[in-house]
Amino acid sequence: MSKTNLIQAVEHGSVTLAKGFSAGGLHCGLKKKRKDLGWIFSETPAVAAAVYTRNLYQAAPLHVTQESIAVEQKIQGVLVNSGYANACTGQPGMDDAYAMRRMMAEKWGIAEHLVAVASTGLIGERIPMDKVTKGIAQADRPEHQGAEHFEEAILTTDTCPKHYAVQVEVDGKLVTIGGAAKGSGMIHPNMGTMLAFITTDAYVEQPVLLSALREITDQTFNMITVDGDTSTNDMVLVLANGQAYDQPLDQSHPDWEAFYTGFATVCRQLAKQIARDGEGATRLIEVEVKGAPDEQTAKAVGKAIVGSNLVKTAVYGKDPNWGRIVCAAGYSGQLFDPDRIRVKIGPVLVVDQGLPVPFSEEEAKRALGEDTVKIEVDLNQGSAQAVAWGCDLTYEYVRINALYRT
Amino acid sequence: MSKTNLIQAVEHGSVTLAKGFSAGGLHCGLKKKRKDLGWIFSETPAVAAAVYTRNLYQAAPLHVTQESIAVEQKIQGVLVNSGYANACTGQPGMDDAYAMRRMMAEKWGIAEHLVAVASTGLIGERIPMDKVTKGIAQADRPEHQGAEHFEEAILTTDTCPKHYAVQVEVDGKLVTIGGAAKGSGMIHPNMGTMLAFITTDAYVEQPVLLSALREITDQTFNMITVDGDTSTNDMVLVLANGQAYDQPLDQSHPDWEAFYTGFATVCRQLAKQIARDGEGATRLIEVEVKGAPDEQTAKAVGKAIVGSNLVKTAVYGKDPNWGRIVCAAGYSGQLFDPDRIRVKIGPVLVVDQGLPVPFSEEEAKRALGEDTVKIEVDLNQGSAQAVAWGCDLTYEYVRINALYRT
Repeated sequence: MSKTNLIQAVEHGSVTLAKGFSAGGLHCGLKKKRKDLGWIFSETPAVAAAVYTRNLYQAAPLHVTQESIAVEQKIQGVLVNSGYANACTGQPGMDDAYAMRRMMAEKWGIAEHLVAVASTGLIGERIPMDKVTKGIAQADRPEHQGAEHFEEAILTTDTCPKHYAVQVEVDGKLVTIGGAAKGSGMIHPNMGTMLAFITTDAYVEQPVLLSALREITDQTFNMITVDGDTSTNDMVLVLANGQAYDQPLDQSHPDWEAFYTGFATVCRQLAKQIARDGEGATRLIEVEVKGAPDEQTAKAVGKAIVGSNLVKTAVYGKDPNWGRIVCAAGYSGQLFDPDRIRVKIGPVLVVDQGLPVPFSEEEAKRALGEDTVKIEVDLNQGSAQAVAWGCDLTYEYVRINALYRT
Repeated sequence: MSKTNLIQAVEHGSVTLAKGFSAGGLHCGLKKKRKDLGWIFSETPAVAAAVYTRNLYQAAPLHVTQESIAVEQKIQGVLVNSGYANACTGQPGMDDAYAMRRMMAEKWGIAEHLVAVASTGLIGERIPMDKVTKGIAQADRPEHQGAEHFEEAILTTDTCPKHYAVQVEVDGKLVTIGGAAKGSGMIHPNMGTMLAFITTDAYVEQPVLLSALREITDQTFNMITVDGDTSTNDMVLVLANGQAYDQPLDQSHPDWEAFYTGFATVCRQLAKQIARDGEGATRLIEVEVKGAPDEQTAKAVGKAIVGSNLVKTAVYGKDPNWGRIVCAAGYSGQLFDPDRIRVKIGPVLVVDQGLPVPFSEEEAKRALGEDTVKIEVDLNQGSAQAVAWGCDLTYEYVRINALYRT
């Protein structure tokens, strides 16, 4: 059985597809109407690994979650609120994050250090804790259960929920890896820049899980950008409870590659969904850089292009302005021979050996109108490659962000 | 007489205020209606120093100008076209730049290596040289003479010409330093990101002039950002012909500081005019960072804030969203203690010791509505400081750049 046969996407799959995981969400009043409090629960403590924003301003819940994981590298419950970021809130904010952790632990009858907390929303204002308290009190009602409620509860200016799940065969057992995420604004991961939660019923020991998460995050969540702003609250958390297969998975296991690829697939799909749903975006931009002398160059060039406001507005205007693509590659801070670059917009070759070639404006415009706009940059001077994702820059982005707070 | 007494701004002053400099511009047909070909001429060869874009893709005219200056570090004539960048045009583009240099030299009767050339406009298309040829043929007509014609001829999507001049006393002689610039799009200098031309009738030897230009560029042109895109064509060129004072000026001269400050003032004013006239901008944003442990931190924090799309849209929406300011400082890549930061929007204190303080929303909105929006960030952990300039991000920026090429 080939590697690809082992991996299958599951439609509508999310954080509860893996065995032993439940989730839910409700409206407790932090936002006007939409759901704003969500949770994930594992029947048994799950091995936990997380990566956090590298912004100097880390929100209070990130500190508390790091403390929780430090105790025995396991998490059983996750509580997330939207509407308030609980960042730049000082000691009172830390107290609020601890209180959220304690309430979740009490409600679900587990130890406090088995609870992770996360927040997303406005920076600098305290979470109205009375509303959170009332929300948690109602969390066991049947109408609040389901991954779809969790997915909604973690959103801010996102226009749609984000989830993805795959199943892989490990030792003949069906193992699930599923995830849910939120993105939208302040999306420029320098770790990951958003919240993503991934659950699996495989068992992976913590150092292995953390190392895989870091590697995969660098190639997925860290390769998206919406607006160049790295948030204070970003976190990717993965929970592995071993309920489908309880033998430790690592590189020495014959099915490690299938599991790893499945894990990476979930992260990549969530990252792309976040980029596609960037604030005001109408299209996903996928920049593939190949022929690079090394991976760092490939990544930096890809991110420079996908992060360029001029490229982003050109995509919005369906303008095959390849000069902006080449220019962004040139200021990526990487050294390469600029005269070997080859650029395609969709299937249309626009630059070869660093110089423009005649092309059909109509075909290029068509490629720029696709839901996923593909830009391929071949530096022609090595074999390293990388893919970066972003979205177009539109009037709507300006509208949303000029008016967000008021 | 104190240092500041020595420096006086001259209203409407530009590149021809200094003795022995003339300039002009005309419409030769590279653009539909607006002037597109401009020149500066010095009666005698002037000591020349220039800094160039650090983008890997340097436009052809930048190569040719570097060659010219290399011969004897002097320039007597400068020819600039707008409409076409002459970047990513290969050997034919180099040939065009050489041809421009030759035609200017022949017309003005000077050696080719005394001519500098510059271009700005669309990347990747050849300049229609027949039009440039016809334009140069008419360059001696009286109606084309004057700095104001030159200033217009170098513009692209700029909405207004940019010029500034000061006079300082050196050894009792009145010395002039004047400049003109263009900016607008692809403005994120990592050198300078635009064209700026500065003339002076002082005499400064080339290594001293170049060193002063580099220092000043780092504090002025390199501290502005409009859209984070570093252009292929940026250049700042300074010409010193010594016609008002022909003794070499350097640090050992008692009036060096006056001259240096005057030079820096011209560059700062031009940089601010460029930022203020950023594509679609309605306001200038000035971020002053102080109390930094070192200058690099101060600069990086300032540029991160002024370059943040979220800060820029918040200014456009007059939204005192200080969280975005603090967040941008946090992802600047610099290490500092985040809990000591103090932030003011105009006169309004919004963050102290890393935490929000109660403030008048109305007063903050008023400050955000000023033509120059001042943001002051005090890191409270040192004495280094820097100022960065940018502009708000508006619907108009998106409109201009979604439609620029077509």
